[in-house]
Amino acid sequence: MGEVKVLGAWPSPFVMRARIALNLKSADYEFIQETMNPKSQLLLESNPVYKKIPVLLHNQRPVCESMIIVQYIDDAWPTGPSILPSDPYDRAIARFWAAYIDDKWFPSLSTIARAQGEEARVEAIKQVISGIQLLEEAFEKCSKGKSFFSGDSIGLLDIALGCFLGWIKTTEKMAGVKILDPETVPHLVGWAERFCADSAVKEVMPETEKLIAFAKAKFQPPSK
Amino acid sequence: MGEVKVLGAWPSPFVMRARIALNLKSADYEFIQETMNPKSQLLLESNPVYKKIPVLLHNQRPVCESMIIVQYIDDAWPTGPSILPSDPYDRAIARFWAAYIDDKWFPSLSTIARAQGEEARVEAIKQVISGIQLLEEAFEKCSKGKSFFSGDSIGLLDIALGCFLGWIKTTEKMAGVKILDPETVPHLVGWAERFCADSAVKEVMPETEKLIAFAKAKFQPPSK
Repeated sequence: MGEVKVLGAWPSPFVMRARIALNLKSADYEFIQETMNPKSQLLLESNPVYKKIPVLLHNQRPVCESMIIVQYIDDAWPTGPSILPSDPYDRAIARFWAAYIDDKWFPSLSTIARAQGEEARVEAIKQVISGIQLLEEAFEKCSKGKSFFSGDSIGLLDIALGCFLGWIKTTEKMAGVKILDPETVPHLVGWAERFCADSAVKEVMPETEKLIAFAKAKFQPPSK
Repeated sequence: MGEVKVLGAWPSPFVMRARIALNLKSADYEFIQETMNPKSQLLLESNPVYKKIPVLLHNQRPVCESMIIVQYIDDAWPTGPSILPSDPYDRAIARFWAAYIDDKWFPSLSTIARAQGEEARVEAIKQVISGIQLLEEAFEKCSKGKSFFSGDSIGLLDIALGCFLGWIKTTEKMAGVKILDPETVPHLVGWAERFCADSAVKEVMPETEKLIAFAKAKFQPPSK
């Protein structure tokens, strides 16, 4: 399949999506750690519109935006296991929830750590909890009693939500909230364990302690 | 292909996407005009997460979000002309620019009419013009000298941008700006004419005068 590179950074959930998709296809790739500050020439040239990671470079041709990369990998490696469901309706539903996660749910998750004031923080937590409840219901419908959103193996929607598991655990510890609560979202709790244990995910899912250290250095001002 | 309904409203560019895709596939469908105020029971039940149009109902099963609907139609009517490019890389590029249009470009276009103050208005116009310039360059690369972004016939990216042509013309007239300027974006000017003249588009593209009357009634306060 030629030369494959992923331009990214280890803590980024979006970069993880590209890497999990390549792992699912058993594709060899080079992981290029982007330093971000300053942004590399390769990043600026590969993604001139957004200047953001991840970028997939396949035979030097760049593909940007994590969910577009995942779908590209599924299209370009047709011999591996399918990442998108084969049924058109299942595919539409997977895309719907993947877009919901990025457009509605994740912005609330990322707000928890950065919220200005207690009211904004409480509102963000409320949004995250009600969103995860919706995703629990979506899991019950999509998985049809199987292990993953996509059935027996990891697919598009599993990758879309699963890439945030490290940051969910980090947020739970740092903000003292329970997001993946076995009492309220038991299916997602079981799913999260299976997802993190999968061989395509294990090597790219950062340890929570490492993410906490990263978040503290990045988001919290040094004490004077 | 069973029963097909589109729940929408005639001035909505997003609804137009679903209708153009169905027209391209020569699919018969019922167009249900959603009144929005109050929202119909059918809309609330079909799209409980966003409560927004368009909704495609295919044998009573709802599909929401316009670009997901377009891709669903392409998947579910495989015998018609392809809406997505067949090459994986071309497909990724079409998805990239379609997402750019929705996430970055259209928000600026819709800001022009509603901008608070001259500074915000000028900034929105600047964003729209620089975005359309990027899309001119994308057209040159994607179309490879052919009539549409997708080649010889209308595809995903054509639908993504083309659905805004009525609103571009409306904004040009109401705000006194030139967005599709033959001097700066000659390829897009030619493309826009071909797009609007296509039989899949003609019947669903609202007349500019009708959109202006709609916009005046909706966005401008009545004179006292």
